[in-house]
Amino acid sequence: MAEAPGRPKVVIIGAGFGGLAAAKALGGTDLVVTVVDRLNYHLFQPLLYQVALAGLAATDVACPIRRILRHHANVEVLLDEVRQIDLPRRRVHLADGITLAYDYLIVAAGAETSYFGHDEWAPIAPDIKDLDDALEIRRRVLSALEAAERTDDPQEKRRLLTFVVVGGGPTGVELAGAIADLSAEILHEDFRRVKPSETRVVLVEMADRLLLAFEPKLSESTRLQLGELGVEVRLGVRVEQIDDDGVLVGGEVIQSRTVLWAAGVRPSPLAAALGAPRDRSGRIVVEPDCTLPGHREVFVIGDMASLTPAGASVPLPGISPVAIQEGQAAARNILRAKGSLPTEPFRYFDKGFMATIGRARAVAKLGRLRMTGLVAWLAWVFVHLWYLVGFRNRLVVFLNWIWAYLMANPGARIIAGGSPRRPPGMQGGKRRATPEPPGYHQAFNRLK
Amino acid sequence: MAEAPGRPKVVIIGAGFGGLAAAKALGGTDLVVTVVDRLNYHLFQPLLYQVALAGLAATDVACPIRRILRHHANVEVLLDEVRQIDLPRRRVHLADGITLAYDYLIVAAGAETSYFGHDEWAPIAPDIKDLDDALEIRRRVLSALEAAERTDDPQEKRRLLTFVVVGGGPTGVELAGAIADLSAEILHEDFRRVKPSETRVVLVEMADRLLLAFEPKLSESTRLQLGELGVEVRLGVRVEQIDDDGVLVGGEVIQSRTVLWAAGVRPSPLAAALGAPRDRSGRIVVEPDCTLPGHREVFVIGDMASLTPAGASVPLPGISPVAIQEGQAAARNILRAKGSLPTEPFRYFDKGFMATIGRARAVAKLGRLRMTGLVAWLAWVFVHLWYLVGFRNRLVVFLNWIWAYLMANPGARIIAGGSPRRPPGMQGGKRRATPEPPGYHQAFNRLK
Repeated sequence: MAEAPGRPKVVIIGAGFGGLAAAKALGGTDLVVTVVDRLNYHLFQPLLYQVALAGLAATDVACPIRRILRHHANVEVLLDEVRQIDLPRRRVHLADGITLAYDYLIVAAGAETSYFGHDEWAPIAPDIKDLDDALEIRRRVLSALEAAERTDDPQEKRRLLTFVVVGGGPTGVELAGAIADLSAEILHEDFRRVKPSETRVVLVEMADRLLLAFEPKLSESTRLQLGELGVEVRLGVRVEQIDDDGVLVGGEVIQSRTVLWAAGVRPSPLAAALGAPRDRSGRIVVEPDCTLPGHREVFVIGDMASLTPAGASVPLPGISPVAIQEGQAAARNILRAKGSLPTEPFRYFDKGFMATIGRARAVAKLGRLRMTGLVAWLAWVFVHLWYLVGFRNRLVVFLNWIWAYLMANPGARIIAGGSPRRPPGMQGGKRRATPEPPGYHQAFNRLK
Repeated sequence: MAEAPGRPKVVIIGAGFGGLAAAKALGGTDLVVTVVDRLNYHLFQPLLYQVALAGLAATDVACPIRRILRHHANVEVLLDEVRQIDLPRRRVHLADGITLAYDYLIVAAGAETSYFGHDEWAPIAPDIKDLDDALEIRRRVLSALEAAERTDDPQEKRRLLTFVVVGGGPTGVELAGAIADLSAEILHEDFRRVKPSETRVVLVEMADRLLLAFEPKLSESTRLQLGELGVEVRLGVRVEQIDDDGVLVGGEVIQSRTVLWAAGVRPSPLAAALGAPRDRSGRIVVEPDCTLPGHREVFVIGDMASLTPAGASVPLPGISPVAIQEGQAAARNILRAKGSLPTEPFRYFDKGFMATIGRARAVAKLGRLRMTGLVAWLAWVFVHLWYLVGFRNRLVVFLNWIWAYLMANPGARIIAGGSPRRPPGMQGGKRRATPEPPGYHQAFNRLK
């Protein structure tokens, strides 16, 4: 690292939307900035479900962090994991033994999946947080279809062709819609023994409507649009049990070999380690300028921070526009503090909210506009292309989408990555910890 | 499977170049064809090294097998692994318990990597045979560069920046050239503390020249072109030992944290299981019509078969044009046999041979033409685009290439896939079974 006595040091933990926005805003200043992330890529998470199910390559939605920041000579990137933050001594200890001193710290380590106290469900019902997760979900869905093509047991075939998505937020809605679209297309064209009408996609949500962050009218539109795709929506029911045979939900057993989890998030464990008061979901209750209480040199932003705007009753949601704007605000406040100016409270500019439902449907709230169906989907395409990191990615994703929209995209139906090295048959990745049901193998003998 | 008494059944094991060519040639006939492969995709192996190192996405070089064969209603695809071939009873037993009966069998299971009796080197020096291998190699090379950026220990930095490729065939030449190109580019642009001039790429070959399948003049051109890229070529030396600290080759220790293996292949274990005479490299010595001796209904093709053309002194090489033509010939002979016609001996039409060396260099032999440098590279691009499976792949690969040629392609520098779930730091995937060298971690403390 460039030795620069006197030049203040900024450490940014996490290169998600928040951390990256802060790093960019501090690029070209006379601060010495170090960005630490445990992955070498920044992920455009809103499109991750498309890597799993809807025709994008892993490389289309991600870009190496150091690539994004390469033009900022004062910004350094370290691929490493944070072990400990020493607030009194203003130091960050990394897994590889490196210690970084800071004058200002931005903690933007994001959120991880919460199984609501049932971590034993994680191997059975994977979540979708990074590229390896997306490839794992792709592997499971495609492997289930392959196994259904092989089996002669009608009951097992039904289990293999039933997909359950837990959680009716944007991710759950997107996953359910994409599975419905994908299975309809490829079963129709590429498979011989399985028909599209045999698949079943069930979306389960604890609340009494989908997309709680929207107003009820758009929630209802989402439910109707999912219905058009053949997705069964179960509202107001709680998942009681998940095992290799399926889920128990509201007293009913849904037999399924593929359960996906999109139900809850909790902040990175670093939040608890900072020792400050936290809200009900574990996020740190930050000061109005996003600083950690008692530490004006430490900013906590994005999914780790709980900030209730003046006059509002609930904290800002854990979505990328909030993280980006908080990152930019933290950078501005660091520059102000360095110039001995008082920091400014964070003000969120609400640009809206949107979610896709399959290939050509969506709901969107943009300012005062409310859109549904194809119009909302076109707005979604435009906004997401606009924000996608890096020109090449934007171009390739755009071409891929055009292509995927016109005809099915075979490249992204390859089973690779995710769980490694298993023969991709019935095992379906990490599953199958429990014994096969009796008669399972015998049913396969199709010698004639 | 469609029950069709009286319609002869063909089972094809393997959907590589040979098996796929046979399946396509049998599509639309009145035979009932079943293709079995343990992967769901056909791989365009000649471009696999580009997924590892040179800017292609995994999805660009692969296509689902059932997608390729979807228009042939008489061809079925099974994702499964072969456990046993019962020649007397004409049955194939699969891992999932399925048994397939056949009238004709095409065995095209290809080759796997041979470590020449040193299988313990496999975890240290990965090979490149499928997409997961390519992603693992990408992970290791990029992780080594990341670790070099972190370290303050000059000796460790040198080890991290030294890349050894074992094997001077086309794959080894391609890998070495691609590492040299990649590290030059991204170290120049994206890294702060590591300079391109600090990297070292060593290509080790046991024979006294590279690319033994070419004539010596082209081998020499290859050596010179690699030299222009900065690759050190060591000829006539044998690898004696590989461990976590590097390789021992011809009595000299080359300290390195990244060793790649491209030195040898051996046929699939199914070759030995067929019980027929085999050549020195383990391939089955087939009849002139590619049938298994004593079994006129069983064809063995591609990398598993050893066939010496009339008048030639050596068997045909294990390359894709041979496999493709053998697959087509096997299909023709099955149709002849079914019509009670005698089978015809296989005749190979030699289209030539080519290998790339980095971004804009190659050697090629096409008929009587011999090309080197940029001209050969352009010929290589043209031929490979032409043969790439599927129109979309062809278009996307072409766009990617244009892009990669004009400027560096960041998307394919993402560390995902390959070895799963490890924090991608110093561990570099599956390596580091041995303890760290002393002082290794202390060296990282860069607190100032």
